[in-house]
Amino acid sequence: MYREKIKVLDCTIRDGGLINNHDFDHRFVQEVYKAISQAGVDYMEIGYKNSKELFSSKEFGLWKFCDDDEISRIVEGVESKAKISVMVDVGRVNIDDVKPAAESPVDMIRTAAYVKDIDKAIHMANHFSEKGYETTINIMAISKDQGIELDEAIYQIEEESKIDVVYIVDSFGALYQESVEELVKRFKKVIKKREVGFHGHNHQQLAFSNTIEAIIHDANYLDGTVYGIGRAAGNCPLELLIGFLKNPKFDIRPILDLISHEFIPLRNKIEWGYIIPYAISGMMNVHPRTAMELRKSHKKEDYREFFEGLMNPELE
Amino acid sequence: MYREKIKVLDCTIRDGGLINNHDFDHRFVQEVYKAISQAGVDYMEIGYKNSKELFSSKEFGLWKFCDDDEISRIVEGVESKAKISVMVDVGRVNIDDVKPAAESPVDMIRTAAYVKDIDKAIHMANHFSEKGYETTINIMAISKDQGIELDEAIYQIEEESKIDVVYIVDSFGALYQESVEELVKRFKKVIKKREVGFHGHNHQQLAFSNTIEAIIHDANYLDGTVYGIGRAAGNCPLELLIGFLKNPKFDIRPILDLISHEFIPLRNKIEWGYIIPYAISGMMNVHPRTAMELRKSHKKEDYREFFEGLMNPELE
Repeated sequence: MYREKIKVLDCTIRDGGLINNHDFDHRFVQEVYKAISQAGVDYMEIGYKNSKELFSSKEFGLWKFCDDDEISRIVEGVESKAKISVMVDVGRVNIDDVKPAAESPVDMIRTAAYVKDIDKAIHMANHFSEKGYETTINIMAISKDQGIELDEAIYQIEEESKIDVVYIVDSFGALYQESVEELVKRFKKVIKKREVGFHGHNHQQLAFSNTIEAIIHDANYLDGTVYGIGRAAGNCPLELLIGFLKNPKFDIRPILDLISHEFIPLRNKIEWGYIIPYAISGMMNVHPRTAMELRKSHKKEDYREFFEGLMNPELE
Repeated sequence: MYREKIKVLDCTIRDGGLINNHDFDHRFVQEVYKAISQAGVDYMEIGYKNSKELFSSKEFGLWKFCDDDEISRIVEGVESKAKISVMVDVGRVNIDDVKPAAESPVDMIRTAAYVKDIDKAIHMANHFSEKGYETTINIMAISKDQGIELDEAIYQIEEESKIDVVYIVDSFGALYQESVEELVKRFKKVIKKREVGFHGHNHQQLAFSNTIEAIIHDANYLDGTVYGIGRAAGNCPLELLIGFLKNPKFDIRPILDLISHEFIPLRNKIEWGYIIPYAISGMMNVHPRTAMELRKSHKKEDYREFFEGLMNPELE
């Protein structure tokens, strides 16, 4: 038995782009798009829409900017029912640069925001809704923001926004299934006119189980990435999520091929997955930034020192 | 807040031995024992007690047999409160070879059995109880054996056995948190005179979350291994479990050091962890045997063919 309302969003290129400056080449992105399409995945998120006035296109690859033309080069000629999503960060996009949905290959725009920026996020997301896009607000680092401000943000989204989905984002990979249960219930109590989504991070090997927990409590929009690629420990592995969901529209085999042919070689070049400093960041409920720095240093396997630094940050 | 009754059992050398023919050298095993002891872990399982009439000591390392003398060489001179456990399989040990507990460095004997062998397992475990050991029965491959026979086995254990703990063992890494919840509740309804334990496998990255789920529903004996080492995808990573438990008796730092110095180099020599054919075995609820064979072949990354072989075994 499956729940028809469940939608799976693949954010391989978008979240994976955080570990290679969004510099996937055209061939690779199209291979992912083909496999996602054949697998019956509902959405593919292809990158961030950032202003070129803020970031240099010399320093970052195409998927930091997601020009409509570049997206068209990927999707044209490929048979697909997958919708295309892009992500925007509060304060990093010139919203007037975004064309109406009818003139764009993009179907969905997801606005990522911390609780403190919820007013800005609602303003932006409503603008995109008015231009005809499906829209979401993704509340980041929610493990750090579970106070009364979160309740206010949830109420505001329900009352003031035109979005389709609000996402719970465990940016730090710090949530356990009990916290996911509590959060989804807290959202569902208020959010009646839209869907609730979940985006996990895998620092403590809990992205998949937390996604299952969100499903159990009626979250219907679920993020995954191929072979779990993504910042630091990465995300919920898409292949596990598809293996779990019983909807016959999904076919895991194109994803398996994609891993065999593209992601096993890629994993030898760039690093993500179960790595102790990321696990420690998750336990400590902190951003993986310092762990990512550690992994680039000669102390990459010195876990004790890293742990003690996070335990007693005031002693630093 | 922590639950004092919770006991953590490290089975690094025992389950890890399944991927190297139990051939860890003395130095390595003692390093693990020292770290486990310093970390405050309650038990360390050091291997299997198999009859040398059934297995050749040329083919297998010391920890396939676990002679008392060899165990004494590990533990002597090391300050420790950790108790020593060994595992026995039904039909593979000469029970008369096992000395009384008072004459042995072993504190606990765990009898591993399928549901169908529960009578034999109770007979064996009771024998060890009478010799003065702490005892458990570990019901293996439980995801395949959830029918009425399981209820009978649980009743028999409660009525006829002298054991201290009965373990739910997810040998195939096939359980999701809902099935763990259901199983632990089913056990706890009948098992009143003993504790319930959980041993997960990590084929679908669910060993840790399933262990948390077992804790939530009052299982008090929990298995883990350092860096998740173990057959196929391995087990619940001990470091994650200790990071989760709030009991101040645990110290994660010796385990972190052990991973830095011993397990990162070891992982370059032998393979365990998140590997797609093991994930597929878990989804399909089958023994990882064929996946382990695949990983030794030149088709090790041919996931689609492996998947289709398991989907349609009758076509083989």
